Amino acid sequence: MIVNSEKKQRRIMLTVAYDGTDYHGWQLQPEAITIEGVLNNALSNLTGEDINVIGASRTDAGVHALCNIAVFDTCCRIPAEKFPFALNERLPGDIRVRAGQEVELDFHPRHCDTKKTYEYKILNTQFEIPTISRYAHHVYVELDVEKMRQASKYLIGEHDFTSFCSVNAQSDTRVRTIYDVAVNKEDDLITIRVSGNGFLYNMVRIIAGTLIEVGRGHIEPSSVSEILIAKDRDKAGPTAPARGLILKKYEFI
Amino acid sequence: MIVNSEKKQRRIMLTVAYDGTDYHGWQLQPEAITIEGVLNNALSNLTGEDINVIGASRTDAGVHALCNIAVFDTCCRIPAEKFPFALNERLPGDIRVRAGQEVELDFHPRHCDTKKTYEYKILNTQFEIPTISRYAHHVYVELDVEKMRQASKYLIGEHDFTSFCSVNAQSDTRVRTIYDVAVNKEDDLITIRVSGNGFLYNMVRIIAGTLIEVGRGHIEPSSVSEILIAKDRDKAGPTAPARGLILKKYEFI
Repeated sequence: MIVNSEKKQRRIMLTVAYDGTDYHGWQLQPEAITIEGVLNNALSNLTGEDINVIGASRTDAGVHALCNIAVFDTCCRIPAEKFPFALNERLPGDIRVRAGQEVELDFHPRHCDTKKTYEYKILNTQFEIPTISRYAHHVYVELDVEKMRQASKYLIGEHDFTSFCSVNAQSDTRVRTIYDVAVNKEDDLITIRVSGNGFLYNMVRIIAGTLIEVGRGHIEPSSVSEILIAKDRDKAGPTAPARGLILKKYEFI
Repeated sequence: MIVNSEKKQRRIMLTVAYDGTDYHGWQLQPEAITIEGVLNNALSNLTGEDINVIGASRTDAGVHALCNIAVFDTCCRIPAEKFPFALNERLPGDIRVRAGQEVELDFHPRHCDTKKTYEYKILNTQFEIPTISRYAHHVYVELDVEKMRQASKYLIGEHDFTSFCSVNAQSDTRVRTIYDVAVNKEDDLITIRVSGNGFLYNMVRIIAGTLIEVGRGHIEPSSVSEILIAKDRDKAGPTAPARGLILKKYEFI
């Protein structure tokens, strides 16, 4: 008979913020520096175990986050809430762990109901402003925010978002629910805030690229409804650059 | 008799924005990369002349700007309003020229009446957030914003700001007028906005450092009045880090 090991396994959930500028996205890649890879190294160094985190959102290269979720198993005895302090000493300044908590051993951050909120920022000025455009896409043509707002309303609800998803996206279904879209302008900065139960590959950036085309007058607001129905990626606008996108909020519902 | 050269000299004023993170401040230094040095190189390269700009605000290492002013003389024929386009192609992405205009030949940006507005940002959270703390000083102790606001009111008006100025500052007089100070909090970000007719060396950062001490409860709001009267740098709080400071507005009045 084998007795229980004295080391008890726990599952820990971390909340992670990062400036994605210098990373090849979240997901582990053998030849490139990624958020997941750097987190794995810091956690393995801290615990002495071989740690591989599971991420909630596999953000693209250059995309930022205020609160992505990373989950991992460990037998070490560090209290969950102490992980941020110990990890932040081992992480570069552009990645910060903001919270740690213990979760059930069968908890998986991509297999539960969530509400995710992304923001896409557009700097709408003739010339760039470096302290703003690090986290915003610069568009020098003046955009019609009211038209962008009208167009965004067609996206709310449950739809097949095939037109708003990269052709090489791997998903069983392309149906997602968008709870809300808001388009606001403050000074020269336009913010598109989208919340939903999940997003397909590049979906928020294609939504942003399409709303920019609406703002420029190249697409009519009401055409967004037809673009959805077409289920054809070519009908939507281009994929807007990664730097304007940030994962803002992650709620388990 | 010497006839006038066919080339007419003009004085051009540029509005310049920058992310100061990677620069040793505005002012030209032989051994370090500075905003002024990079601008001089780009202008000399563009015009074929040896250009040396005069800056309005000689911001410190790491300080940012939305609208610093650079003035220079040239005999080249490029229209003033075309300089931003031509220069931005020659400048690194963290410096951008936002406007160009011709001014009188005797115009000097530091010898005229101006209203300057600076903002100092404080991220008041337990852990840093990389996309915010690039342009904000992180303070993990919760600050009392109401007390900071009360304290800030004592700074408004014409005062001798010796207590709020680095001991090695070189100025004929340390009397300056602060037109307004506002302390606001939005989510976890506290913004101190100060406008005045001029600022001594490190003055805004010492004001921020002092208001942070007030927010922590180490200095009483009413003590700011006594600190001013003392004319003693040691009485005020520490110089807050450069990264939180941005030159926001520059108005000729």
